Amino acid sequence: MQQVIERVLPRIVPTPEEEAELREVEKALIARVDEAARLHDRRLYSRLLGSASRGTWLRYEKDLDVFIFFPEEYTKQEMESIVTQVASQVLVDTQKRYAEHPYIRGRFMGYEVELVPCYALRELSGIRSAVDRTPFHNDYVTSRIGGLENEVRLLKQFLKGISCYGAEAKVEGFSGYLCELLVLKFGSFERVLHSAATWKPGVVLGMGEVDERRERRRFSSPLIFIDPVDENRNVAGALSLQKFSEFVYASKCFLSSPRVSFFFPPPRRVSRGEVEEALGSRGTALLSVRFPTPEVVEDILYPQLRKTHRLLRRQLEVAGFRVLGGGVHSGRRCHIFFELLEAALPGAHLHLGPPVNSSHEERFLSRHASALSKPFILNGRWAVFVRRRHTRAEELLREFLTGDLRSKGVPKHVAEAMQRGLEVVQGEECLDEEALLSIAEYLTPLFPWEREQG
Amino acid sequence: MQQVIERVLPRIVPTPEEEAELREVEKALIARVDEAARLHDRRLYSRLLGSASRGTWLRYEKDLDVFIFFPEEYTKQEMESIVTQVASQVLVDTQKRYAEHPYIRGRFMGYEVELVPCYALRELSGIRSAVDRTPFHNDYVTSRIGGLENEVRLLKQFLKGISCYGAEAKVEGFSGYLCELLVLKFGSFERVLHSAATWKPGVVLGMGEVDERRERRRFSSPLIFIDPVDENRNVAGALSLQKFSEFVYASKCFLSSPRVSFFFPPPRRVSRGEVEEALGSRGTALLSVRFPTPEVVEDILYPQLRKTHRLLRRQLEVAGFRVLGGGVHSGRRCHIFFELLEAALPGAHLHLGPPVNSSHEERFLSRHASALSKPFILNGRWAVFVRRRHTRAEELLREFLTGDLRSKGVPKHVAEAMQRGLEVVQGEECLDEEALLSIAEYLTPLFPWEREQG
Repeated sequence: MQQVIERVLPRIVPTPEEEAELREVEKALIARVDEAARLHDRRLYSRLLGSASRGTWLRYEKDLDVFIFFPEEYTKQEMESIVTQVASQVLVDTQKRYAEHPYIRGRFMGYEVELVPCYALRELSGIRSAVDRTPFHNDYVTSRIGGLENEVRLLKQFLKGISCYGAEAKVEGFSGYLCELLVLKFGSFERVLHSAATWKPGVVLGMGEVDERRERRRFSSPLIFIDPVDENRNVAGALSLQKFSEFVYASKCFLSSPRVSFFFPPPRRVSRGEVEEALGSRGTALLSVRFPTPEVVEDILYPQLRKTHRLLRRQLEVAGFRVLGGGVHSGRRCHIFFELLEAALPGAHLHLGPPVNSSHEERFLSRHASALSKPFILNGRWAVFVRRRHTRAEELLREFLTGDLRSKGVPKHVAEAMQRGLEVVQGEECLDEEALLSIAEYLTPLFPWEREQG
Repeated sequence: MQQVIERVLPRIVPTPEEEAELREVEKALIARVDEAARLHDRRLYSRLLGSASRGTWLRYEKDLDVFIFFPEEYTKQEMESIVTQVASQVLVDTQKRYAEHPYIRGRFMGYEVELVPCYALRELSGIRSAVDRTPFHNDYVTSRIGGLENEVRLLKQFLKGISCYGAEAKVEGFSGYLCELLVLKFGSFERVLHSAATWKPGVVLGMGEVDERRERRRFSSPLIFIDPVDENRNVAGALSLQKFSEFVYASKCFLSSPRVSFFFPPPRRVSRGEVEEALGSRGTALLSVRFPTPEVVEDILYPQLRKTHRLLRRQLEVAGFRVLGGGVHSGRRCHIFFELLEAALPGAHLHLGPPVNSSHEERFLSRHASALSKPFILNGRWAVFVRRRHTRAEELLREFLTGDLRSKGVPKHVAEAMQRGLEVVQGEECLDEEALLSIAEYLTPLFPWEREQG
């Protein structure tokens, strides 16, 4: 274990020179932002927040999160306007991004910078959006983390290695702040893992005493961690059961056989031939819906892709197709794919109706007078063999995905993108180069730390 | 309605000459039986019971049920021995049959005769088997039915026409005694139908007051008719929900459009080509299990065939095959057939395991180390893609039906017959000439009264 950690640390802990450089850049950046902001209002000021300020950033990351603090009388529009102007004076390659409210991404002296407007608040009770909470998180962690920074770095890198890092919708994993709190709670990277190895869904944690029953009634995520700066917030609210379970299992595996590959797994490589072979030996049918990727951030895109996946899966299943599984992928195009037990179904279909002599009897009998069979009685209920509307899964999806998609439950951005170009393909046609890895990860799942060194 | 009934009556009511002939035969038969029986014990005597004695037999039926009454000290073996000897002296073409206890079938002056031993009892409380109840039924009906005999004949013939007559296991319909009670209860054939047209499962009837709730707790058949000679017996206990519902619907249809074809439907004729076409247009897979018909009475055979059908259906469904329906047929051979949505399934199969970090985790992981995929986590549970054991339904049944069939739940007589010769066939091979009608009745069900006149 200690050997593994000693091989990992140099790759994630910045050298003193690198740290000094970051502090130089920070100083210059804050000075420039403050200068530009005060041209608008002398009360404005900026601070570096996030992992760079807390000393828990990873060596190879060059991200700086700079918050500009506004008096409370500012409107969101005014803040957006000023931040945009400041960014254009200080940063290069700027882009506006949208979360709860807009912020700016850009670069400064080779560092990736996020410039975020927030309110300058004395008390947390006045917050208006999630970013207003960040300064309080920063203060909480900064005042306690001294000496544990590298433990946090180990936990973050471990979670990255096992694909569980990040609270964003695409991952639904562990946020940086949650990593810091876990290390503060348990005292070290290793102790966090020892605890995690015993977790089952429904774990309730907090920096102080917690009332497990009460918190489980208030929050439903598999791990509940009460925010020490706001007891009404669950820091692990975005954590999925999937990523929770993967972390638990990875912790057990790592503790029983520690290896560097948990932190730095080799990339998975798959060939088209390999995937074709896996598919052939399964004898199942692959079906994929493809369309141009909508131009929205992944935090909006991924929930919409997953919702569309569930929606289409339900359509297939209601029609009698059995879906083994599937997944989503976004690249140049979005791919929503399904593995089916059968690409086609026979024409006949047993349709069960109301009980004999019930009030719905007559309607059933008149409606199904010309089906594949005459209506008949099956154990006290009416039944009839009818012709299945769609015998091919492909056709079913094609027909479903025409017309007014929004009214059928397809989310906005996906619906719009589908209208710009939609393909429903089957079999090897699904094995698009850019989706190949996602399909392989579905067909032959492999934990990152079990990948073979290439 | 009246016209229909007037066309039916001559076909089911015996002429005075026929009735006189039956009474002659009865007299001669009882005299011969009494004579032969008294050679064994002067206390023995015989009586004609059943529909011939009650005046409710159908014109074309020439059945006489003769009961020999024994004092209570006789054992079943002694009774069987004496009845056998009496039958050999009086009847020709005798055969021993087995119900609750043995009886003899044979012929006498062109009539079919059943010679049944029973105890001579003053009180019903002393009965030892169902046949001991028959004399009491006879007395109850005979003393009340005067003038309603033809109403009973109409109801019996109606039930025969719609395939709902007979309490035997093959039919699970209405017994003759139940027909008599229904007519006594409602006063006429037509009134029985008017009542039946309103029935829903759970009807409770009796000759006097009935406590519906209490009877529904004691008995579970769709129609409960409390036996007027034994309030602890439900006369309709053998009636299936299927036949109950068919009678209810037939009653409604007949009342709204009375036709002779309800009483005398034309036989259904099907050609092999017709069935092949129906099957082809459905696109489903027919599967049939065939074996020599066991030499047991249908009352024993049919429950065993149905039980085997359910057992095999469950095997198919557990393995992932979807069964639309099926049926059983017995002729020279027994046929247990199934219609499946698919004759074959793809090799891959998703196998869900225990939750991550549960006590069964390790066993699952070690057991499935070499499946189609490595074990992976699916929403907090372990899962793995495994190879399906049987991809063809035919193979599955063939394998299931080898070895010790009794221990697998196959009933005795079916298991023995299967060991003498078993075939599992698929598709058009299932369309054996003798099973063709049963298969057609399943694929394209048709109420008897809706059959076309040939």
